[in-house]
Amino acid sequence: MNKKKYAVDEASQELIKKAKDDRIETVWDRKKIMKTPCGFGEKGLCCRICSMGPCRISPVTGKGAQKGLCGATADVIVSRNYARMVAAGTAAHSDHGRSIAHVLHMASKDGNYTVKDEEKLIEIADRWGLETEDKNIYDLTHEVAEYALNEYGKPFGNLTLPTFVPDKRKKIWENLGITPRAIDREVVTVMHSTHIGCTADAESMIKMAMRTSLADGYGGSIMGTDISDVLFGTPTVRETEANLGVLDEKYVNIIVHGHEPSLSEMIVLAADDPELLKLAKEVGAEGINIAGMCCTANEVMMRHGVKIAGNFLQQELAVATGAVEAVIVDVQCIFPALSDLTKAYHTKLITTSPKAKISGAIHREFDERTAYESAKSIIKEAILNFESRDKEKIFIPKAKAHAIVGFSYKTILNRLDKVVNSNIDPVGTIKPLADCITSGVLRGAAGVVGCNNPKQTHDQSIIEIIKSLIKKDVIVVATGCAAQAAAKAGLMSKDARKLAGKGLATVCDLVDIPPVLHMGSCVDNTRILNLVGELAKFLNLDISDLPVVGVAPEWMSEKAVAIGTYVVSSGIDTWLGIMPPVIGSREVMDILTNKIEDMVGARFYFEEDPVKAANQMIERIEEKRKILYKKLKNQNLAVEEATVAQN
Amino acid sequence: MNKKKYAVDEASQELIKKAKDDRIETVWDRKKIMKTPCGFGEKGLCCRICSMGPCRISPVTGKGAQKGLCGATADVIVSRNYARMVAAGTAAHSDHGRSIAHVLHMASKDGNYTVKDEEKLIEIADRWGLETEDKNIYDLTHEVAEYALNEYGKPFGNLTLPTFVPDKRKKIWENLGITPRAIDREVVTVMHSTHIGCTADAESMIKMAMRTSLADGYGGSIMGTDISDVLFGTPTVRETEANLGVLDEKYVNIIVHGHEPSLSEMIVLAADDPELLKLAKEVGAEGINIAGMCCTANEVMMRHGVKIAGNFLQQELAVATGAVEAVIVDVQCIFPALSDLTKAYHTKLITTSPKAKISGAIHREFDERTAYESAKSIIKEAILNFESRDKEKIFIPKAKAHAIVGFSYKTILNRLDKVVNSNIDPVGTIKPLADCITSGVLRGAAGVVGCNNPKQTHDQSIIEIIKSLIKKDVIVVATGCAAQAAAKAGLMSKDARKLAGKGLATVCDLVDIPPVLHMGSCVDNTRILNLVGELAKFLNLDISDLPVVGVAPEWMSEKAVAIGTYVVSSGIDTWLGIMPPVIGSREVMDILTNKIEDMVGARFYFEEDPVKAANQMIERIEEKRKILYKKLKNQNLAVEEATVAQN
Repeated sequence: MNKKKYAVDEASQELIKKAKDDRIETVWDRKKIMKTPCGFGEKGLCCRICSMGPCRISPVTGKGAQKGLCGATADVIVSRNYARMVAAGTAAHSDHGRSIAHVLHMASKDGNYTVKDEEKLIEIADRWGLETEDKNIYDLTHEVAEYALNEYGKPFGNLTLPTFVPDKRKKIWENLGITPRAIDREVVTVMHSTHIGCTADAESMIKMAMRTSLADGYGGSIMGTDISDVLFGTPTVRETEANLGVLDEKYVNIIVHGHEPSLSEMIVLAADDPELLKLAKEVGAEGINIAGMCCTANEVMMRHGVKIAGNFLQQELAVATGAVEAVIVDVQCIFPALSDLTKAYHTKLITTSPKAKISGAIHREFDERTAYESAKSIIKEAILNFESRDKEKIFIPKAKAHAIVGFSYKTILNRLDKVVNSNIDPVGTIKPLADCITSGVLRGAAGVVGCNNPKQTHDQSIIEIIKSLIKKDVIVVATGCAAQAAAKAGLMSKDARKLAGKGLATVCDLVDIPPVLHMGSCVDNTRILNLVGELAKFLNLDISDLPVVGVAPEWMSEKAVAIGTYVVSSGIDTWLGIMPPVIGSREVMDILTNKIEDMVGARFYFEEDPVKAANQMIERIEEKRKILYKKLKNQNLAVEEATVAQN
Repeated sequence: MNKKKYAVDEASQELIKKAKDDRIETVWDRKKIMKTPCGFGEKGLCCRICSMGPCRISPVTGKGAQKGLCGATADVIVSRNYARMVAAGTAAHSDHGRSIAHVLHMASKDGNYTVKDEEKLIEIADRWGLETEDKNIYDLTHEVAEYALNEYGKPFGNLTLPTFVPDKRKKIWENLGITPRAIDREVVTVMHSTHIGCTADAESMIKMAMRTSLADGYGGSIMGTDISDVLFGTPTVRETEANLGVLDEKYVNIIVHGHEPSLSEMIVLAADDPELLKLAKEVGAEGINIAGMCCTANEVMMRHGVKIAGNFLQQELAVATGAVEAVIVDVQCIFPALSDLTKAYHTKLITTSPKAKISGAIHREFDERTAYESAKSIIKEAILNFESRDKEKIFIPKAKAHAIVGFSYKTILNRLDKVVNSNIDPVGTIKPLADCITSGVLRGAAGVVGCNNPKQTHDQSIIEIIKSLIKKDVIVVATGCAAQAAAKAGLMSKDARKLAGKGLATVCDLVDIPPVLHMGSCVDNTRILNLVGELAKFLNLDISDLPVVGVAPEWMSEKAVAIGTYVVSSGIDTWLGIMPPVIGSREVMDILTNKIEDMVGARFYFEEDPVKAANQMIERIEEKRKILYKKLKNQNLAVEEATVAQN
């Protein structure tokens, strides 16, 4: 048996070795100690929902218990567990969105937080039917914030869906009864319906999970994206560098890690404060080097070009460089292991959110009302820690890659304008992309998203899938840790065009983009929804008619399950490179990989092998192209007939 | 080794035997097949929160994995699992409360749902600061409904706490930062903070769980109780019978099972419809016999005297009588097993809620807008099923017990008026109860609540604990399945006074009550909170100063964990007769059974042996009495001093 490598990039490999030499423990060590994961849990067949159990059942062997004590079958247990994953993922994204909405509510002309993108604010206000004319911008801001916050808890009616959702898609959701209501309510309903003695029907349960996931994608997550754009600016194209080589021995290195940009934006801002720069010099550093980790990296990189230290599985490795003064964290995807690990070096782990305290860390609650001062005092703590470095323990790998990032929906439209013949077509539309796709110059588009997971060699599947796709003229949009994997592998540089097929390479040249577009953090998957929604609307089609796929090659979090579910529910076929805990139920497997297509026009594919997955995606894209052609032809015929009839 | 009996009451024993003869499977059979539950799960040491795992760790043996892959320790894993149980329990109760609030919003003078208790409506409106003067009662109703619904999702501020919460208690919550915000938000925050990479600090996690549980007890659950009282009447004293012997072979037997009274009230109402009674006679029955199961039984029994067929573990046994035409269910605590089981007889399992569909059941969605007609058509289906009975399969046990029920807070005050000397004291106050307790005639009060669980002999612990307590002059208030156990054991009859100690027996005689008061369903634990809150306020003390305890001897659901947590957080020591999955974490164990007392003045006790538990409770009550005396003495001294100073 081939021993699987832990990681593919040189920086990670070098630091995994260093960690071993330093006798510190990393996730891969813990994985080795954990041995085989529990088979019941892995198949979704373990139920801990009431205290009559825990119950574990064996429908696969047919021996032993076939039902939980209450009579819950495999289908019941698996579907409930699945729904709870979606609920938790939705809760995480949406609560992040809520925090940003509360920050928006605090924004003021001279305050810590101001409106950076008025155009976007007005766009949101318009979408929600709020009066914008002749209104003080901060009055409007607070109205928008209130509207946003009410989307979480309004007692009546459905979520206000974004304008980019095609009517055909809305109709599909309506007919299935999965149009979401208030965001929090959907999470709570799932928590209720998964309680002992509630829903015991897999299809009904999965539909509830789908409805909840839509409250994430078209509700909570979109708040995270849109309101962050208002407060911190809609991303524009920037250059940056990615991988642990961005750390700099001569500087005070600060890692910002987590998710909500209200903290990280202030850290980035405050890091330029002359007082702090002076202090950094005083302690012997040349300056302050802020580097991002996980989605926080995506947020600040998209808006400021802040460098990416790494993605999820590199959080421990960053500390192992011995050159990090502080890891400043807020919420989600932060290893509790950092608490012990940072103590093995001089690094300070600083938690800032009441929603995510960590034992053994230094807790400095970040107060949005005094955000800048809060950020300054946290950075100061990091600077003062510079002198505690143990020089013997420092090793920063060289590896880093150049990347072009910042592709918000608006940025993409701007770039597309480069190929618009402005004598014929208007600028600022999605038409050029539609043309590229319908003509077949681009065969389709793929969203490559999600986390890292030590069940796969770090980054390997992500990179392999992206390479296979772009080679076949499938343009890739990426978010989250997957986007960072691509950046580190150089796939977001202009040079990467040479790995693309001819059609894609030509488009990249003309539009001046890399073949893989960084669209942001995990909540920013909504930017992808925006793109495909507008594309479908432009072509007068439904999203499921487009040659578009989604893939999370190395996902690990419940957020990823929520994302996968709303992407499929949006009509986009989705591949998961890690098997979710559903294999124990024949019915749930059948729904997710088959029946769901009859409901929403797309399905899940579970495939751990990246090569196979990429081939399936390309095959599926080509299938979809045929349908696309047929539908477009029928549309043309209809138009022609109408014209003939008219004349 | 002594073989543990499955159940203590004759009816259950007889039907367990019949089930065996009929070769049908019950929960006890499934328990036998399940064998030993998973030790990791039972200790709370199994983490399925992300897909890097599942992880299971062994801090007890110290061998093998000591941390999850992310580095989560036992304390982190256990506290997260615990918090998620509280979140799910809170979601269940609160979503039930929300449904009733939506029904209130539909109420109209001539509609299916009307206001039955205007006084209560006005009381709620006053509590929430709504204008009540000169207002049309249905306008006020809709305002109250909207206020209630907004408590679930309001973006700013805290939950509006009921007036019965003593200021001292509010202060304690404020200082701990556990005053709840909007109800749904608390559930979502816990789901977020338990997500991978968020809270990794047991104390912080437990505090969040406490805050969420308070959103249940003082938010969602209270909606369930109060609004049901408005719509269906505040319970008054009634006589009823309890146990499977209430089924009647000559009648069409319909079991109503679940939780939300909006369905069951209509079923009870429609069962008197002449058209249906005629139909029942036509099919050869003497009439329609509605009997309740689980909390639905408590709801309709408290308000109509509807008989109780049984509690949680008897739901299968009811079907096994072969004499039940239909089991009509809504949400929570419904065995999925009923689906197959009912097919072994002629019984129809009819699901009615979109929140709890069951595979294989007949789904007749209950539409509140046409509630009466909905209920009628469901009952009709049951009546028409009468002829499908297999007479060979019918066996109805004789056992049933007489019970006096319906003790809402108001009913208790009314009864207490019997001992008020109206020349001296005002009527309608809690003073007589306060006098009984401070004088020591009653040593204290105990809330005996919660479910059944096959880990204990059915009902045994509940009954044993109640008997021990009343013997020692501790008055018992009961809800949920525990109340039903007491009713079936005759402990809610006047005769039961002879089992009480002298002090309690005297009080029972004077006030004309049984020694065990049925206070309703599980959401109605809020009636207990109301009682102890007012008692504390009357004595100018905090709840934790009172000689009052809570116990859930045979709990099984996540709702029970939420209840236990809000009861402890309210300052009432709480015993659990089933070990919750927390033993794997030394820190969580220490918080729940020790440190939490420093926070809120009460703690958890985990004790499976009912005799030991009862002794501990009595001991604790006596301890609390000493503190009570001291505090009252100090108060008197202060009053005296003030008087002296004044003169």
